[in-house]
Amino acid sequence: MQELKHSAMKKLEIIVQGEQQDFVLDLLDRAAVSGYTVVHNLSGKGSHGAHQGHLMFNEDDVLVMIITVVPEDLAAAILEGLTPFFNKHLGVVFTSDIQVTRLGKFQAPGGAA
Amino acid sequence: MQELKHSAMKKLEIIVQGEQQDFVLDLLDRAAVSGYTVVHNLSGKGSHGAHQGHLMFNEDDVLVMIITVVPEDLAAAILEGLTPFFNKHLGVVFTSDIQVTRLGKFQAPGGAA
Amino acid sequence: MQELKHSAMKKLEIIVQGEQQDFVLDLLDRAAVSGYTVVHNLSGKGSHGAHQGHLMFNEDDVLVMIITVVPEDLAAAILEGLTPFFNKHLGVVFTSDIQVTRLGKFQAPGGAA
Repeated sequence: MQELKHSAMKKLEIIVQGEQQDFVLDLLDRAAVSGYTVVHNLSGKGSHGAHQGHLMFNEDDVLVMIITVVPEDLAAAILEGLTPFFNKHLGVVFTSDIQVTRLGKFQAPGGAA
Repeated sequence: MQELKHSAMKKLEIIVQGEQQDFVLDLLDRAAVSGYTVVHNLSGKGSHGAHQGHLMFNEDDVLVMIITVVPEDLAAAILEGLTPFFNKHLGVVFTSDIQVTRLGKFQAPGGAA
Repeated sequence: MQELKHSAMKKLEIIVQGEQQDFVLDLLDRAAVSGYTVVHNLSGKGSHGAHQGHLMFNEDDVLVMIITVVPEDLAAAILEGLTPFFNKHLGVVFTSDIQVTRLGKFQAPGGAA
């Protein structure tokens, strides 16, 4: 029987337009993250839409949230790597502290080195 | 090139029945949040269902999770504003500490002043 | 009018293959959690897929994220209870600190004692 292993990590929640999903996943692959999870078909509104008062519901504006959990230094590198992308495209990244429990022998979807 | 800007904020995850989504989004708009993201088609179970042992799967009970990220004082105001609503309707709010990285020039869906 | 009640709790985000959802929910029911929320139809990739460079998109590999919020001691018990499961099945659990606001008289989907 294995012991529980807890690791303090950073969780990144990267919210972008669905059409930009592959770009972000490619960047994560090149950063050698060990996994990620994608939540599909989110809707949302940013400040730019506040005055029009409508949600971004057309197909191009369907959002995805890409969740990955990485060590702190890798989190910083990923944020740096995303900066040019976010100068051209809508999105935001939430960063939070998290403990990851690797309970078994299998590799994890969604993260953690 | 822009520097990365980190801000300590509160993340609110507001889980309500789908039919109540517009009420909550209207309240967030009136609170002048700068953005939010909606995760659709969640299912769930609260304590009221524990004895019946079934999920809330009928159409009226499809849940949504509305994510918004705001300064701490605005978080408190939003929670106050939601109190009358939650005296009539099912739901819960999770509050957590988060860092928001505004990586580019675009406004963010899902939050952050 | 009720006061706001804040409680410090642990949020568990349990990501497993969709076909394993019922097993995890049964375990949570037996642990007497007061609620949970399920986010459906996630995709993801774990380390095992990194070399093939493709997402797990076939039907069996659709993922779900089960969110529950519990006191710290119950979180530890649930993680222990999941260990044999994760020795046989793909998945990961993220644990984070959270404040739960019970705003009204109704029970909460997605958690909190």
